[in-house]
Amino acid sequence: MNGRIRQPTSQPTQTGTAMSSAAELDARDPLASVRGAFSIPEGVIYLDGNSLGALPSSVVARIDRVIGTEWGERLIRSWNETDWYTLPLSVGDRIAPLLGAGAGEVVVGESTTVSLFRVVAAALGLRPGRSVIVTERENFPTDLYILEGLKSLRPEIEIRHAADGEDPATLLDGAALLLLTHVDYKTGRIRDMAKLSAAAHAAGALAIWDLSHSAGVLELDLPGSGADFAVGCGYKYLNGGPGAPSYTWVAPAHIATVNQPLSGWMGHSAPFAFSPDYVPAPGLRRFITGTPQVLSLAALDEAMKLWEGVSLRDVRAKSTAQTRRFIERVEEGCAGLGLTLVSPRDDAHRGGHVSFAHEHGYAIMQALIARGVIGDFRAPDILRFGFSPLYLSFAEIDRAVDVLAEILRTRSWDAPEFSTRRVVT
Amino acid sequence: MNGRIRQPTSQPTQTGTAMSSAAELDARDPLASVRGAFSIPEGVIYLDGNSLGALPSSVVARIDRVIGTEWGERLIRSWNETDWYTLPLSVGDRIAPLLGAGAGEVVVGESTTVSLFRVVAAALGLRPGRSVIVTERENFPTDLYILEGLKSLRPEIEIRHAADGEDPATLLDGAALLLLTHVDYKTGRIRDMAKLSAAAHAAGALAIWDLSHSAGVLELDLPGSGADFAVGCGYKYLNGGPGAPSYTWVAPAHIATVNQPLSGWMGHSAPFAFSPDYVPAPGLRRFITGTPQVLSLAALDEAMKLWEGVSLRDVRAKSTAQTRRFIERVEEGCAGLGLTLVSPRDDAHRGGHVSFAHEHGYAIMQALIARGVIGDFRAPDILRFGFSPLYLSFAEIDRAVDVLAEILRTRSWDAPEFSTRRVVT
Repeated sequence: MNGRIRQPTSQPTQTGTAMSSAAELDARDPLASVRGAFSIPEGVIYLDGNSLGALPSSVVARIDRVIGTEWGERLIRSWNETDWYTLPLSVGDRIAPLLGAGAGEVVVGESTTVSLFRVVAAALGLRPGRSVIVTERENFPTDLYILEGLKSLRPEIEIRHAADGEDPATLLDGAALLLLTHVDYKTGRIRDMAKLSAAAHAAGALAIWDLSHSAGVLELDLPGSGADFAVGCGYKYLNGGPGAPSYTWVAPAHIATVNQPLSGWMGHSAPFAFSPDYVPAPGLRRFITGTPQVLSLAALDEAMKLWEGVSLRDVRAKSTAQTRRFIERVEEGCAGLGLTLVSPRDDAHRGGHVSFAHEHGYAIMQALIARGVIGDFRAPDILRFGFSPLYLSFAEIDRAVDVLAEILRTRSWDAPEFSTRRVVT
Repeated sequence: MNGRIRQPTSQPTQTGTAMSSAAELDARDPLASVRGAFSIPEGVIYLDGNSLGALPSSVVARIDRVIGTEWGERLIRSWNETDWYTLPLSVGDRIAPLLGAGAGEVVVGESTTVSLFRVVAAALGLRPGRSVIVTERENFPTDLYILEGLKSLRPEIEIRHAADGEDPATLLDGAALLLLTHVDYKTGRIRDMAKLSAAAHAAGALAIWDLSHSAGVLELDLPGSGADFAVGCGYKYLNGGPGAPSYTWVAPAHIATVNQPLSGWMGHSAPFAFSPDYVPAPGLRRFITGTPQVLSLAALDEAMKLWEGVSLRDVRAKSTAQTRRFIERVEEGCAGLGLTLVSPRDDAHRGGHVSFAHEHGYAIMQALIARGVIGDFRAPDILRFGFSPLYLSFAEIDRAVDVLAEILRTRSWDAPEFSTRRVVT
């Protein structure tokens, strides 16, 4: 396992002219060297970093140390001697710049769904007398499920769902909260955070943003966009590993006054005083619930080190160039083969992934994966391709399009081994 | 790092006669060989396995494989190809025998505090029209904090705290729930689960048990004891590593009907259908919330393999013998040196740890740790010693008592380096 950079392929293909252009783009890519810090398997073009980011090579040694030395040798003493206790906030501080946020504004721990529950319930507590939550029917399902869960405890909650295409701002009358996902998990469409947060505020509501498909691929400015709370995944563009813990951002104005209901001992102002009464920690530590899952948290900490010195402007510029190139080359190379672009064509409205619909999307994605081009499928018919600027080259994009075009032209997806549905993805 | 068994020390000490008895006990210990599966550092007598269990050696290779191969090489494909998706329930099935429970009754994930919130809220939903929760003032604080948190969402909740020494059964009139910790984290006192669960049922309430200090050191029979729900830590006697995810047991009679409010996509009946409406999975999978933290969960899975073939009767017998021996030898060797037993003297009422109070408890524990005898301190004055039967020898117990006696006799704890309080433990 290593992180060496594969040379851009130079074999002639039907798109030979553009290939040399890809080589040029790779040659002047300011992020090209970052790929060397990742372990990318040979023979794979990985277009699913928006679902599970690739492995930063240094995680292997870090976790070996956490397990062998910190746990195995130092045992319980590591809670005093190492960073275990401070990681939820120190990893948060590493994530903060990706959100345009400051130190002490981001905390890490538990799953994204649990973090969503905490912020929605906490934000609702800041709007006494109001109980309407506005969201979108097409939001990522877990965001909707957690609202249902909160409503099971607070039946007075009314959930208003904007239908597909409906402006959620039109539903904000009397609302307490607006809960939206910034970049749509299916289409990659970017919501206008500043405009929608302002609409929420104008209606007296607070704005909560799910950044799972945003952080690490867009330039974000949460305070400047008027957001009140945000959460997101650690395992997508942040490359924290399978099921990496989530992050929570709270606007500085709220930190000192907001309370969240998953009040656990690790969020207490004096966790080891073992007082029977809960007194929330003065800062954002109050958003910690239980003991952090240290192995997973340390992996995310290590992964976040790769962002040191990375310009988010470069990240966004490369991401935009890569998604645009992919769209253009697919529409050129696969014309008439049944693909329909689902993602926004306008760069400014498109996040880090691109989706195409195809009647036989599932089988086509299986055929792609069998050829080493890994994206994912989202029901009912969406082929989704994610582009992680930290480790993806332009040459790989061209090669992926060539493979896709060949699969469609030859109908090689139309084979029994590609149509059998698996349990999970 | 390795798991080799250290030879019982045979150097003459003031307690030389008893030492040979320890050697005899170790020679006929049916669990002696299990220690070889752990990495215990040289020079350490580890009496804090009830806070963070020691490292099962095989975890190192397992996590190296999870990171290097499953994540690094196979990437997103591992959600289909490996056990990532099934681990929450398969690890639960490994834990179930320790609880006297059956397959499909235990699920693993999130922190113990989050699991507590889920079961308390879920159980409350099974008692419509009731809103009293009975617990103890001396319960582990996070159990109390999470009730406060739930009350912040459901203000009709009334929390009744039994005072120290008061029988919580006397407070059950009209109650919805009884929430108790089975083995007290400070004293090691065992609550009578069958009797108190029966009292709860007689009052029309449900019984929820926190097993954090029970599972892995006691013989448990949750169904036979009338429990309705239970949760516990993965990082104590289960040796799952720092912050290992927690487990949740639900009585089979409740599984099909109970709903928990942290309804996330991983608990949906069809997580990858991405339906906007939450439909809980038919079995215990509905108690899963978000994506599991795979590295931490896999470590616990690996650690649980050590229990295969281990007799819980042997575990409990060894635990009882070890805690009794420790008490007797401390009271003999440290007589008149200021220690007061806090734990029950009766074997039947004492769990896997033993606590002594001492006016200078904090400094004494620091002095012990400096000598390689690792226990922990709990405010205001408790020296707490945990005995993990899977890896602790009788010879180590004798040696630990000798060190404690020497520290007390020489007052070597009375030094500046031992009195400075650390932040965490």
